[in-house]
Amino acid sequence: MSAATPKKADGWFKECGPHSSVVISSRVRLARNVLNASFPSLNKQTDLKNVLDTVLKVAEAHPLFKKGSIQRMPDLSALDRQVLMERHIISKELAANDRFGGLLLDETERTPVMINEEDHVRMAALGPGLGLEEAWERLTELDDWMGKRLPWSYHTSFGFLTACPTNCGTGLRASTLLHLPALVMTNEIHNILQGLSRLGLAARGFYGEGSKALGDIFQISNASSLGKNEKSLIRLVQQITLRLVKHETEARQRIHETPWRVKTEDAVFRSLGILQNARQIGFEEAMTLLSRLRLGLHLGLDLGVSLSTLNSLTILTQPAHLTRAEGKDLSIPDRDAARAALLRKNLAR
Amino acid sequence: MSAATPKKADGWFKECGPHSSVVISSRVRLARNVLNASFPSLNKQTDLKNVLDTVLKVAEAHPLFKKGSIQRMPDLSALDRQVLMERHIISKELAANDRFGGLLLDETERTPVMINEEDHVRMAALGPGLGLEEAWERLTELDDWMGKRLPWSYHTSFGFLTACPTNCGTGLRASTLLHLPALVMTNEIHNILQGLSRLGLAARGFYGEGSKALGDIFQISNASSLGKNEKSLIRLVQQITLRLVKHETEARQRIHETPWRVKTEDAVFRSLGILQNARQIGFEEAMTLLSRLRLGLHLGLDLGVSLSTLNSLTILTQPAHLTRAEGKDLSIPDRDAARAALLRKNLAR
Repeated sequence: MSAATPKKADGWFKECGPHSSVVISSRVRLARNVLNASFPSLNKQTDLKNVLDTVLKVAEAHPLFKKGSIQRMPDLSALDRQVLMERHIISKELAANDRFGGLLLDETERTPVMINEEDHVRMAALGPGLGLEEAWERLTELDDWMGKRLPWSYHTSFGFLTACPTNCGTGLRASTLLHLPALVMTNEIHNILQGLSRLGLAARGFYGEGSKALGDIFQISNASSLGKNEKSLIRLVQQITLRLVKHETEARQRIHETPWRVKTEDAVFRSLGILQNARQIGFEEAMTLLSRLRLGLHLGLDLGVSLSTLNSLTILTQPAHLTRAEGKDLSIPDRDAARAALLRKNLAR
Repeated sequence: MSAATPKKADGWFKECGPHSSVVISSRVRLARNVLNASFPSLNKQTDLKNVLDTVLKVAEAHPLFKKGSIQRMPDLSALDRQVLMERHIISKELAANDRFGGLLLDETERTPVMINEEDHVRMAALGPGLGLEEAWERLTELDDWMGKRLPWSYHTSFGFLTACPTNCGTGLRASTLLHLPALVMTNEIHNILQGLSRLGLAARGFYGEGSKALGDIFQISNASSLGKNEKSLIRLVQQITLRLVKHETEARQRIHETPWRVKTEDAVFRSLGILQNARQIGFEEAMTLLSRLRLGLHLGLDLGVSLSTLNSLTILTQPAHLTRAEGKDLSIPDRDAARAALLRKNLAR
């Protein structure tokens, strides 16, 4: 196992923050590019190598990134990269990059910096529950520190220049990961997601862009980062998140009324029964059933399981995490069996 | 509740007899008609009334049928009749008959006699597991006793005359109720059922003629009763039943081998989890899941439940039994909730 691989099996993901009944986590990231080096997509090897070397060198001086927390992608196994991706620390794209990609990761896993992903530098601050402002404070500190040591590509009209125009300006994306099972159950989710785009927000699934909303988990974020300052972008995502928390909470109350109530409780307890007993289970099904348990907890049902355990299982039942825990490559049936065993162990009464 | 309604909630059905891993119960019945009275299907009220009065009167003298165990259908509520049908004591047809139908039912529920069903008299002996010969001994005794007191319609070539030609001759039908989940799982059941008809046997579902094989439960019986004596008919059903026991047992061994094994165990434990946790469940689904538990028991899985409990639940989760247990009419959702509650209570670890 590589040094950059997180030590704690489930990291901060198991913690619960503000509004954690709906908001799983918050994240703010900044996109930055080094002056006079071409964007990673142009694939100029010398530029990519220079950027990676320069950023890693600079990072050594920062107290957050001690030795071992600075990593070149080729030094990480495909499994380690997959694990980092499953923890939402690096993107699918960086996980696939085994040439000049890099990662800075502090011990708490709350301030990951990706190097040579879509942009030269993507620094992020994240944490449990609704905590965009706290994340932003940490991130802006890191950004200031970096900005003093690295010459960023900046334009007086367009702000920070980025590979994709939607990231120009502040280069900021604020996002929250939301659990919206009641809005899915009542079919209200579609209208709500459509409404989001009119408000300048984008909605995605569990693994970010283009991914399916596994387990009723949605990521919402500002759609563009130009023309507004950082604080107002964060405020926008914060406000819409709070509005979605309200919608979801109301929908949960509605489905807790007759005749929905028995149906909902039935679905929740059946999910518990399956998770406590299955001998083989795929990740998608596990996510769907865990989502129902999470809903059940918020409806006040006695499931003998904590939200923290559910959060943790959402991470640990992913393919690479299971493979790492077993210490060997697993066939799909074996992985499904390992997942079922892990769920049984953690959900036993 | 009527006096003819069984006292024990689950009766002998919860007991386990020989080969009970596959054979749920055995039954032998004889069809008899009273001389010079038209068959019930002709619906001649005077004849029907006379037959009913005569048979009930005669039965009073038999030690098995004490007061209260002799019943006219109109004196039973629709619910009581439904309960008797769910216990396989009377047929659907007799349950629907609220004019001149009658029932003699001994205390152990093992020797029911239906009056004015398809024939004037249908007397049966039944019990748990494979016990056709024992049932036949009891039945032939009753038949002798009845034959001395009632003039049966008999023809020297055709034997006992019956409403349906397939019952002529001995008027005997021997049947076994078999649980064949492994043959269903491996898809071997279709060929086997087809083969049965060539051997002179008929296969049916859980509730007899024309019914679906709920919970992988099949009834097999001799297709006609003419041209063979009673003992050879019983021997035929006995032998074929033993052959099916062998097929099913071998199929269970096969599905207990890799890679079927994990799949089977998964299906069994998921079923347990759902039954232990559901808040609403229909009868068909309950039967399917109980069938898997029964299979699991025979595969040696530790489910914390006995075969006797499963047998009993198969009876008690039926609609009329639930209604009777609750003591009031139930809507379908309420009945599904009562069924789920009963299952949870009986399957709790």
